[in-house]
Amino acid sequence: MKNKEMTYTNNYIDQSRAELLTIIHSKMSEKRFQHTLRVEKVALQLAELHGGDVEKASIAALLHDYAKELPDYVMSDRIITENMDLDMLNYGNAIWHGPVGAVLVNEELGVNDEEILSAIAQHTIGAPKMSLTSQIIFVADYIEPERDFPEVKEARTLAKKSLKQAVFYEMRQTLMHLIKQNKIIYPKSLESYNAWVSRIEKER
Amino acid sequence: MKNKEMTYTNNYIDQSRAELLTIIHSKMSEKRFQHTLRVEKVALQLAELHGGDVEKASIAALLHDYAKELPDYVMSDRIITENMDLDMLNYGNAIWHGPVGAVLVNEELGVNDEEILSAIAQHTIGAPKMSLTSQIIFVADYIEPERDFPEVKEARTLAKKSLKQAVFYEMRQTLMHLIKQNKIIYPKSLESYNAWVSRIEKER
Repeated sequence: MKNKEMTYTNNYIDQSRAELLTIIHSKMSEKRFQHTLRVEKVALQLAELHGGDVEKASIAALLHDYAKELPDYVMSDRIITENMDLDMLNYGNAIWHGPVGAVLVNEELGVNDEEILSAIAQHTIGAPKMSLTSQIIFVADYIEPERDFPEVKEARTLAKKSLKQAVFYEMRQTLMHLIKQNKIIYPKSLESYNAWVSRIEKER
Repeated sequence: MKNKEMTYTNNYIDQSRAELLTIIHSKMSEKRFQHTLRVEKVALQLAELHGGDVEKASIAALLHDYAKELPDYVMSDRIITENMDLDMLNYGNAIWHGPVGAVLVNEELGVNDEEILSAIAQHTIGAPKMSLTSQIIFVADYIEPERDFPEVKEARTLAKKSLKQAVFYEMRQTLMHLIKQNKIIYPKSLESYNAWVSRIEKER
């Protein structure tokens, strides 16, 4: 019952957690709402395990799919008006809702903590540099308990041992999955992967 | 004995095939020379099978590794002085010898046929648009008889049926191989892959 009792005390957001739940529930299907709650649960576990900020983890997790169910034209409009990388428009809507969500969460809910916003923005494709909260959300979204694909077990094991290793594993598997499926790949996903290759090598 | 008797008649190059063999033999180890001969053999088969120019296939195959055994500093110098993509320097010498080889073959042997030069240039990473000769060399280098890796059988089967499918298969396997090995990937390799995803999709 821990989640339900959680009280935000750091002024990262004006709303209480309960109010946040009401807001996001109104913006998504029941299925996605339940997914969001599971991501939050895993995000809190990862934050506790790896010394992350549990309050940021909760807020970013609850808001990570804030823009996911918007119509494509609304998302693509925002990508254009916010001067985001227009090349994103060539690579499918699955990657748009992260960056657009971060803009909307700032605008509509007044969140301006950079770590929370970048965690929301980066959860779709990762980034060369990711804060602890960003890594937590990226991985939690990939391994939440209802995820079921061959590599998820290994991802869960890694996430307990090393968040960075889990991030890198997720990036690698996601790229390979796209290639196996003959899908185009957003160049910035490769840029993130390349940066993480160097980072992981240095730590060995 | 067909290769040995082959006579170049189209003025793509001043040297005879026998002279070319002497030149390349002087520039590389015996092992690489034998590899080059095997690539030529496969390239000629693919050219005949898919309606390519056998003379261009022979010349490009014999010259594809022309720069491979040059010291790194010589290759990187040429990449800089020829105004090539400097980002190439961040992604390891394995991809340098194609573009550098094309420059040297033009300069030292007087080859100026664009199809032959681009086939040499592109054999290390492919390209969004590849001529028939370029596709032939790219694939022949991957499937020559001494190549031995799990995917080569499938690549050989595809090469008989469809050169384009074989090119695409090679690009996909090469990317996945690099990711499995935690290696950085030259962004232009992804650019080629993405372009070929669209091309192959359209043909289905």
